[in-house]
Amino acid sequence: MAYHAFSEQEAVEYARKLPGIFSENAVLESREIGDGNLNLVFHIKDKNSDKSVIFKQALPYARVVGESMPLTLDRSRIESEALIIQDQLCPGYVPKVYHYDKELALTVMEDLSDHVIMRRGLIEGNRYPKFSEHIGLFMARTLFLSSDFALGFKEKKERVAQFINPELCKITEDLVFTDPYFDAESNNFNPLIRAEVEKIWNNAILKSEIAKLKFGFMTEAQTLLHGDLHTGSIMVTKESTKVIDPEFAYYGPMGFDIGALIANLLLSFAAQEGWKEDPLECQDYRSYLSKTIIDLWLVFEQEFRALWKEHVKDPMYSSSAYVDEFVARLLKDSAGYAGCKMMRRVIGLAGVADLKTIEDEQRRAKAEILALEIGQALVMSRHSLTSVDELVEIAKKAVK
Amino acid sequence: MAYHAFSEQEAVEYARKLPGIFSENAVLESREIGDGNLNLVFHIKDKNSDKSVIFKQALPYARVVGESMPLTLDRSRIESEALIIQDQLCPGYVPKVYHYDKELALTVMEDLSDHVIMRRGLIEGNRYPKFSEHIGLFMARTLFLSSDFALGFKEKKERVAQFINPELCKITEDLVFTDPYFDAESNNFNPLIRAEVEKIWNNAILKSEIAKLKFGFMTEAQTLLHGDLHTGSIMVTKESTKVIDPEFAYYGPMGFDIGALIANLLLSFAAQEGWKEDPLECQDYRSYLSKTIIDLWLVFEQEFRALWKEHVKDPMYSSSAYVDEFVARLLKDSAGYAGCKMMRRVIGLAGVADLKTIEDEQRRAKAEILALEIGQALVMSRHSLTSVDELVEIAKKAVK
Repeated sequence: MAYHAFSEQEAVEYARKLPGIFSENAVLESREIGDGNLNLVFHIKDKNSDKSVIFKQALPYARVVGESMPLTLDRSRIESEALIIQDQLCPGYVPKVYHYDKELALTVMEDLSDHVIMRRGLIEGNRYPKFSEHIGLFMARTLFLSSDFALGFKEKKERVAQFINPELCKITEDLVFTDPYFDAESNNFNPLIRAEVEKIWNNAILKSEIAKLKFGFMTEAQTLLHGDLHTGSIMVTKESTKVIDPEFAYYGPMGFDIGALIANLLLSFAAQEGWKEDPLECQDYRSYLSKTIIDLWLVFEQEFRALWKEHVKDPMYSSSAYVDEFVARLLKDSAGYAGCKMMRRVIGLAGVADLKTIEDEQRRAKAEILALEIGQALVMSRHSLTSVDELVEIAKKAVK
Repeated sequence: MAYHAFSEQEAVEYARKLPGIFSENAVLESREIGDGNLNLVFHIKDKNSDKSVIFKQALPYARVVGESMPLTLDRSRIESEALIIQDQLCPGYVPKVYHYDKELALTVMEDLSDHVIMRRGLIEGNRYPKFSEHIGLFMARTLFLSSDFALGFKEKKERVAQFINPELCKITEDLVFTDPYFDAESNNFNPLIRAEVEKIWNNAILKSEIAKLKFGFMTEAQTLLHGDLHTGSIMVTKESTKVIDPEFAYYGPMGFDIGALIANLLLSFAAQEGWKEDPLECQDYRSYLSKTIIDLWLVFEQEFRALWKEHVKDPMYSSSAYVDEFVARLLKDSAGYAGCKMMRRVIGLAGVADLKTIEDEQRRAKAEILALEIGQALVMSRHSLTSVDELVEIAKKAVK
């Protein structure tokens, strides 16, 4: 079937014909639940059995602040292929892909309606006791097992070609690593923090450090990244963690995924005083977020080292001196990328609800300035970091 | 025509049919001039006009120390496509490609019989006054202009995929970055230097540093490298420099090409006492080689910075702080890769004539040990290098 955007009715008809999903006497209903900026998302349910699936169809454009720009449908292939690989490497931590239709840029996948988007959960002040363990494991397995440390020399290099993803990488190159550090048209920040933003624009040393991280993002083909691992790409319950939406997947530096996640937890950390009147409550939730960061890194590191021991056959890479060196550098990289990801969410085009929904402008400004301070400190201090505790200390010290 | 290895007669018949190369009444003769280990090389000449071309046909195997292992014919595509790009980026510094036949894995190219292989020229004690300028320019233009600093975001990433070259990269990964640092079967060194080689095998810190360089070789997709830029891949006259044989081309770290070249000049440096009886003569030629390294880096850096100024539009990359930082890191990388390339030529499978042809075993051992010392010092001291003079000083200091 030639590409065209599905109606709800077309989605139902397509679902009915898919083998092995719904029974013959299913009574299907469809509801479009996406935000319509990049993709159509249909929730399709059999009223008889309560069985349901998600249809995600890429649109051939991105709608950003009112404007529409063309965007490759190939991101749908990238997303479905990345989900299938991630599920092989860490089963149960991503939605199951039931079907992929290249022509229609359509992925049919597991319905996760019993989960909530983690960002919303954090804004509501919820806690997810198994999250650190789950996400640490997910990152260790996906990042390690797609790298040169685990794949054969041919397979890894063919995967690099398979996941060449220029258009979506370009969005990150611009919106994470460039525009926020200049007076770019795309920027969108609270006027009350203009003085602090201008300090960043005028900080040549900071910008040179960010340029290094940008070049790393553009050239270091270490492993298959999720590519956009923020708390809006994670769905959770108290018991379960599912990572969704890997359309930005490509071969890049491991620290970029870890940094994205840490950044988004620290954005929630920075937003707390905007949300909570009681300083003790605020401090308590910050402790929870800090512990989450420390725990997820420790789980990550433990699993990463275990995988190293199990998989690395290359004698150059198997020495303990090199593993230590690699993990130490990875922490520094992760801190640097976390810093960029924090600043861009305050200054750049795509804000985060954690901050944007703080109603009082003054309190929002205070939280945003705190996020900028943590972000800058992470970028500038990363070379001397030796533990994840020190990383978290940077955030704690920035709180006045 | 389906792939089969050409006979001289078949090469002549093929040449006669190529449009625009020989005239109708040409009297063609063919001579196979390759070493037959990896490729057939035919020199085809018209006796009437003296016009000549080179046919280079890849063989589907590599013959190494008697054994034969299959090797992809795709390297022939890589080589011809790399030559065409290099000629566009730096015209006149590589042989012109007249024709490429994918089926036959055959490249028809400019005959450079008036040039000599530079390694042979150096062994004979010749000097090439224009070489530093030529090769500095060639490296600056090819390395800069295929990078993210010059190419559009799509074109660069598509080129990464175009030059995925797993089998030939694997040869480098094994023979440059792994086997020499262990008691590997492939190694092939002078028994007189065994004690020094074992010291390297037992040096965990050195090997961890080499592992970092290996990981950089495997993951840092900075630019289209030549991939094997030693003095055996360069043909020279006093007036002209031509870089040949880019079958190892792939997207890798810029420092690898620069390091390969510096390593091979320093191998000649290390070999001098094996060749020259007169210490003054020896010292004089070493000064020439040292000056060549310094000059080629300075030309490289000047041209690289000029290209940067001309081409870099991305505001993150255009600051002078970042350029300085980038060039400084590139020198360190180049020194590190040079060190690996030196050690592998002494310990590993593929030696260099500069050392191998020193007849006196004791003198050869002395030169080889000097090469190992320089190689180790380059790897270990690279982080603190701030100028190419300091790099050359490392070699000079190693001379007892």
